[in-house]
Amino acid sequence: MGLEIERKFLVDHDKWKKVDKPEGTHYRQGYLVDEASKTIRVRAAGKKGFITIKGSTTGITRKEFEYEIPVEEALQLIDGFAGSEVEKIRYRITFMGKLWEVDEFWGDNQGLIMAEIELKHEDEAFEKPDWITREVSDDKRYYNSYLAKNPFKDWGN
Amino acid sequence: MGLEIERKFLVDHDKWKKVDKPEGTHYRQGYLVDEASKTIRVRAAGKKGFITIKGSTTGITRKEFEYEIPVEEALQLIDGFAGSEVEKIRYRITFMGKLWEVDEFWGDNQGLIMAEIELKHEDEAFEKPDWITREVSDDKRYYNSYLAKNPFKDWGN
Repeated sequence: MGLEIERKFLVDHDKWKKVDKPEGTHYRQGYLVDEASKTIRVRAAGKKGFITIKGSTTGITRKEFEYEIPVEEALQLIDGFAGSEVEKIRYRITFMGKLWEVDEFWGDNQGLIMAEIELKHEDEAFEKPDWITREVSDDKRYYNSYLAKNPFKDWGN
Repeated sequence: MGLEIERKFLVDHDKWKKVDKPEGTHYRQGYLVDEASKTIRVRAAGKKGFITIKGSTTGITRKEFEYEIPVEEALQLIDGFAGSEVEKIRYRITFMGKLWEVDEFWGDNQGLIMAEIELKHEDEAFEKPDWITREVSDDKRYYNSYLAKNPFKDWGN
C-alpha cells in the first residue's frame, strides 16, 4: 500500500511538441469500479499489466494498492470487465531532477495533454517546466476515471 | 486466467467431525464488487493474500483471474473496501486421489459446512466421501458472495 501524492497540470501543446523526449508507452486503462469511495483500475502499459485499487482522495493524497499482472490478462480484464476506458501515450521525462509523466490522450479524449508529478510530501517544492500551464490537481474532471466516462470531446457541450 | 470448474456439496456434520484431517487455514474474504456480471474478491488465507476477479457463471464454469498479494494488504483491502465479508476455516483433504476443500463457516454463517471439488472437465467422474450430502453447485445461495450479504443464520426467516 502506498500514499499517492501527485500534482497535475495542463500542457501547452506547441511548447510540448518542441520538447526533446524519449519514446512514449501506449496505455489502455479500464475501470472495473469507479465510485467516490473506491476505484479499481486495470492498466495495460506497454508490455506490463497492473491492477490498482484506490480509495477516496483526501486533499491531494490518496491510498493506493497496485499489483503487477500479465499484460495479456490486463487486456482480457479491460475487454471483459471494464465499464469505461481511456487510451493514451505516456511520456516519462525528467526536469530539474524530478520525473514528469505526460499523457497525450487518444480517441474521444484526443486534444487533451496532461502532466503529472509525484511528490513525497504535499508541500514539496519543484520547478515547473515552461510547457506546463494551469494546475488541475483539484479538478475531478481531469481524473482519468472521469475522462473514461465523460470524454474531453464532449466537454464543450 | 483460468476456467474454474467446481462442484459443491453440503457436509454431514457428525460424519465430518470424525474425519481425520490436517489443520485448517483461517480465511477472511471480502467482496469489493458483487454483481451478476463480475465479482471482485480479496482473500486473506493464512499467511497469503489474493485478489480474484470472476466473470458470470455459465453452467458450473466461470472465468477467473487470481493474483497473489501480501496478506497485510489483503486485510487492509478487506477492512477498507469490502462491502461484505465471510470468515471460515478451510480444510484441504484428499479422497480417492482428488482434493476436497471443506469450509466450516464462522460468524453469522456458523452452522454451514460446505465441500468443494475442482474438476478439469464439467463431466469428470469422482468418488464421493461418505460425509458428503446434497449437491448445491447450482444454488446461488451457497455462493460465498451471497453468504457474505445474506448470512446462513437468517435463512430460516
